[in-house]
Amino acid sequence: MFAKRTDLALEARELWQESAENTTKLSGVKAIKTRREGYPVTRVQILDDNGAKSLSKPVGDYLTVDLSTFWQRKPDYFERAVRAIGAELKAMLPQEGAVLVVGLGNSAMTPDAIGPLSLESLLITRHLRAAMPRQFAGFRAVSAFRTGVLGTTGVESAEAVRGLVKEVEPSFVITVDALASRRLGRVCTTVQMSDTGIVPGSGVGNYRAALDKETLGVPVFCVGVPTVVDAATLAADLLEESGVEDFDEKRLRGKNHPLMVTPRDIDAQVRELSKVIGYGINWALQDLEISEMNALLS
Amino acid sequence: MFAKRTDLALEARELWQESAENTTKLSGVKAIKTRREGYPVTRVQILDDNGAKSLSKPVGDYLTVDLSTFWQRKPDYFERAVRAIGAELKAMLPQEGAVLVVGLGNSAMTPDAIGPLSLESLLITRHLRAAMPRQFAGFRAVSAFRTGVLGTTGVESAEAVRGLVKEVEPSFVITVDALASRRLGRVCTTVQMSDTGIVPGSGVGNYRAALDKETLGVPVFCVGVPTVVDAATLAADLLEESGVEDFDEKRLRGKNHPLMVTPRDIDAQVRELSKVIGYGINWALQDLEISEMNALLS
Amino acid sequence: MFAKRTDLALEARELWQESAENTTKLSGVKAIKTRREGYPVTRVQILDDNGAKSLSKPVGDYLTVDLSTFWQRKPDYFERAVRAIGAELKAMLPQEGAVLVVGLGNSAMTPDAIGPLSLESLLITRHLRAAMPRQFAGFRAVSAFRTGVLGTTGVESAEAVRGLVKEVEPSFVITVDALASRRLGRVCTTVQMSDTGIVPGSGVGNYRAALDKETLGVPVFCVGVPTVVDAATLAADLLEESGVEDFDEKRLRGKNHPLMVTPRDIDAQVRELSKVIGYGINWALQDLEISEMNALLS
Amino acid sequence: MFAKRTDLALEARELWQESAENTTKLSGVKAIKTRREGYPVTRVQILDDNGAKSLSKPVGDYLTVDLSTFWQRKPDYFERAVRAIGAELKAMLPQEGAVLVVGLGNSAMTPDAIGPLSLESLLITRHLRAAMPRQFAGFRAVSAFRTGVLGTTGVESAEAVRGLVKEVEPSFVITVDALASRRLGRVCTTVQMSDTGIVPGSGVGNYRAALDKETLGVPVFCVGVPTVVDAATLAADLLEESGVEDFDEKRLRGKNHPLMVTPRDIDAQVRELSKVIGYGINWALQDLEISEMNALLS
Repeated sequence: MFAKRTDLALEARELWQESAENTTKLSGVKAIKTRREGYPVTRVQILDDNGAKSLSKPVGDYLTVDLSTFWQRKPDYFERAVRAIGAELKAMLPQEGAVLVVGLGNSAMTPDAIGPLSLESLLITRHLRAAMPRQFAGFRAVSAFRTGVLGTTGVESAEAVRGLVKEVEPSFVITVDALASRRLGRVCTTVQMSDTGIVPGSGVGNYRAALDKETLGVPVFCVGVPTVVDAATLAADLLEESGVEDFDEKRLRGKNHPLMVTPRDIDAQVRELSKVIGYGINWALQDLEISEMNALLS
Repeated sequence: MFAKRTDLALEARELWQESAENTTKLSGVKAIKTRREGYPVTRVQILDDNGAKSLSKPVGDYLTVDLSTFWQRKPDYFERAVRAIGAELKAMLPQEGAVLVVGLGNSAMTPDAIGPLSLESLLITRHLRAAMPRQFAGFRAVSAFRTGVLGTTGVESAEAVRGLVKEVEPSFVITVDALASRRLGRVCTTVQMSDTGIVPGSGVGNYRAALDKETLGVPVFCVGVPTVVDAATLAADLLEESGVEDFDEKRLRGKNHPLMVTPRDIDAQVRELSKVIGYGINWALQDLEISEMNALLS
Repeated sequence: MFAKRTDLALEARELWQESAENTTKLSGVKAIKTRREGYPVTRVQILDDNGAKSLSKPVGDYLTVDLSTFWQRKPDYFERAVRAIGAELKAMLPQEGAVLVVGLGNSAMTPDAIGPLSLESLLITRHLRAAMPRQFAGFRAVSAFRTGVLGTTGVESAEAVRGLVKEVEPSFVITVDALASRRLGRVCTTVQMSDTGIVPGSGVGNYRAALDKETLGVPVFCVGVPTVVDAATLAADLLEESGVEDFDEKRLRGKNHPLMVTPRDIDAQVRELSKVIGYGINWALQDLEISEMNALLS
Repeated sequence: MFAKRTDLALEARELWQESAENTTKLSGVKAIKTRREGYPVTRVQILDDNGAKSLSKPVGDYLTVDLSTFWQRKPDYFERAVRAIGAELKAMLPQEGAVLVVGLGNSAMTPDAIGPLSLESLLITRHLRAAMPRQFAGFRAVSAFRTGVLGTTGVESAEAVRGLVKEVEPSFVITVDALASRRLGRVCTTVQMSDTGIVPGSGVGNYRAALDKETLGVPVFCVGVPTVVDAATLAADLLEESGVEDFDEKRLRGKNHPLMVTPRDIDAQVRELSKVIGYGINWALQDLEISEMNALLS
């Protein structure tokens, strides 16, 4: 059986429901649909171990904002997206305390660059508060960290973040990362926010690789955007829907390299979404208008 | 009927042969397989109008070097690839005269950047020959041009090249460009060289967009590497092989954006292949060892 | 006698006046001071051959906008700078006809990158007018060209522009380039606009290198910003003012490399001024508000 | 009295000796001149508190390699420079133990980018040794860290390094940084190596900002290259040599920005020297030929 890969709780729930083997009702999982600023929002709550086991994800809240209509560029599409992400994130985050924002991923590989790129739209204030406490009393203390790539640092992302957390002592951590989805329609159109921590990259089963409350000592919130679909997952879905049961999975792999499906203008889309996420985090943390963020970040 | 897209003459021939409608023998097309430096080489010759019509490509020679084993990084894989490309190209090009090398494509979009990136490994000598004719008498005169992107120049690639050719007056032009393939296995593993000119991008049917002997007044040779597979083409092939006849093509398109299938490490692969192509052109044009190119380009 | 180098007509006039040898009045040169949007403007007019010979610059108009206060970031400093540059340029340029904007200089060398960087803030419309004449009737046709660096193209800037002008047939050309100044206080604070054409780089005395009406066949307007001061010029000035007459010029040269004096944050300053210039050209050519430019360029 | 700024122990010693006030012999400081691979080497040893006070630098060894002739590009200039830096550094460093190399400075400001750029030529091995201990037994464990810029992280370099050192537990740290010199002739021609730790940037007097054995708990070795001369320092020297005693220091400052003197081709020089330093550190740490480094880093 081919394991379909997804980082979205929304899709994990869909997969469970589509599976012929699951004849009972999914227990321990709740899903609620709402809208925010014109964008559909789905909240998947994994309530207990039953739910966690069924969806292969930790207990916690997973919020998904559907930005499909963002790309139609209707009036205020950018500002509405920032407020939608910002307001949902604000409701999830602690209402006070310093924060460390961690951009995971490889800035030299476009679909993986959303973490480091988002930090470029983030208001960094920790050093300003330290130097001018009176003037910056109105700002939450925000610091940022780009983990880099193992091959160019020799240090696991989780190790580096752990060291920094010990030194900087934030109240909580926000990670920003690229995710994998199984649906083309969700690529560069969906933002997931969760309160569960994350195991970046292929770190499955590697305890030390996790970034969560257990390993870092403070709560870890995650913002992610699917930027690629695994080519094999896509094909498996496609063939299944067409009633084909057996297919040669190898046919879908490149001769030497894993393959992904991604939009042709991925560079531009990742850049725009990174700005939405950076500004969304600013919205959630600081008491500022978008025009004020523009001025501070120019 | 879904039109499968390929820029490779090799694949156009395969498609013709696979088609159930083509019950006769393909006339006006010849294919010969050889090897060079350990890499398989296929020469497809389109000999007449019959062949051109069948394969929807102009009459001419199309050489394909299969670099699949390049990525296994066996001894001298880079040097052998340079010599393979270089020797095949040398046999195709005029043995003397100044050359203008044109890097087509968008350097800000990774899979499309192979043209501009290749120029970074090219030995540029025209200005040196002009300034120091005695010292550089041993070098062919080489100049280079990055066409840029229509949206940032307002000028079609073909217009800009035409203007430059009038001024620089090269004996011939070499273009370097990214191609589309229908087979995952050929992405970033195949280099096609042809003596037929090119219609870049989606310029089909646009006479002024062509870069060929007719529009530029000098012969135009083309070097190209497939870096993506159109997602819809891939799926159509896949389903056809699995015996599915009808499928909803829309299912394979992103909500708002055309999709492509590409290797996960496309950034690194495009960078390496660009160097192979730049050095291969140097090999074809100049009488230099690879170590000498390293020294001159460092 | 040490030759002080400046590209500013304003400074050429100052140098003439400071020179002890020039005991008569400077004839054939007129200078008028005004203000625009709060920024001082000086117009130096070289009226005849006498003036041209005295200042070693061609007959024509040279407008200088002093943006020193830009860096104090008072209200609307950016918008005012765009309107100041834009309005002065508009008064100088032909009121209709297509334009080709040429970014001279090396984008990989920060102080030399102002030409190519300015093009990133320019509205490119020629291709849009060609494709959708009705919808874009309200826009002037603008195309752009980055000349690149001789060492990476093998082609002189002037040759490449000449070829493009033949093909694109603009009514006039605007060049954007980095200049040399003799005064630290003018570095990254002064914009010079002239209607005289330009000889880029060290092309002095090289007829073919000029970009002017004679070589291109259409009028050539020039926008430039001094980004460096030649270290030897600075020292000569400094010592002269201190009453030192003889000094060892070699003392001011690096062991192997010419030296320049430049602001520490030159990267950021060049980026900001490039945007002012790009927007200023848009202001001069198109009937648009700055907020509309923001929207079109985002 | 104008305070002349230098980060080179060599120049601090020269300044002491030039000062009219210092009529006695400089005690507690020893200087020895040798050569390595054709490049002059000066070792300044600050032996005690007397010496430290006189030169305003901590007790320790300061080695300076003069690479002036590097830019003449005589045979093997690059390999000889790598071996000169590498051999001197090897003699200074502990002969075993894991190392963390820290690239200080701002990669977006050319003269300040030598730290981060050097890391691109460094062999990173810590993760490989961890994953494949048998295969990589022959390599020292090397990890790397780019500190980033305070304004984009909110975290002081020293804090971030301290956190990482706690987690990674290297036996010692090597920092790479840009330095200030008072002599134009030393810009981009001198490499200083010391065993004394460093206070990066303008952190003078800020205990927490230091990177040294006291703050990090492990020895800290420093590699630095002067890439700029402070414009005011240069002028003060120049005027003093010319017998001018009083001058208006303000005359040497830009209207709003501190100024530096730097080579025109600083971008290219910093890139080349970064490679020398990265390879030099590899040479000091690993038992490899330069050609082997080329292969591993390509």
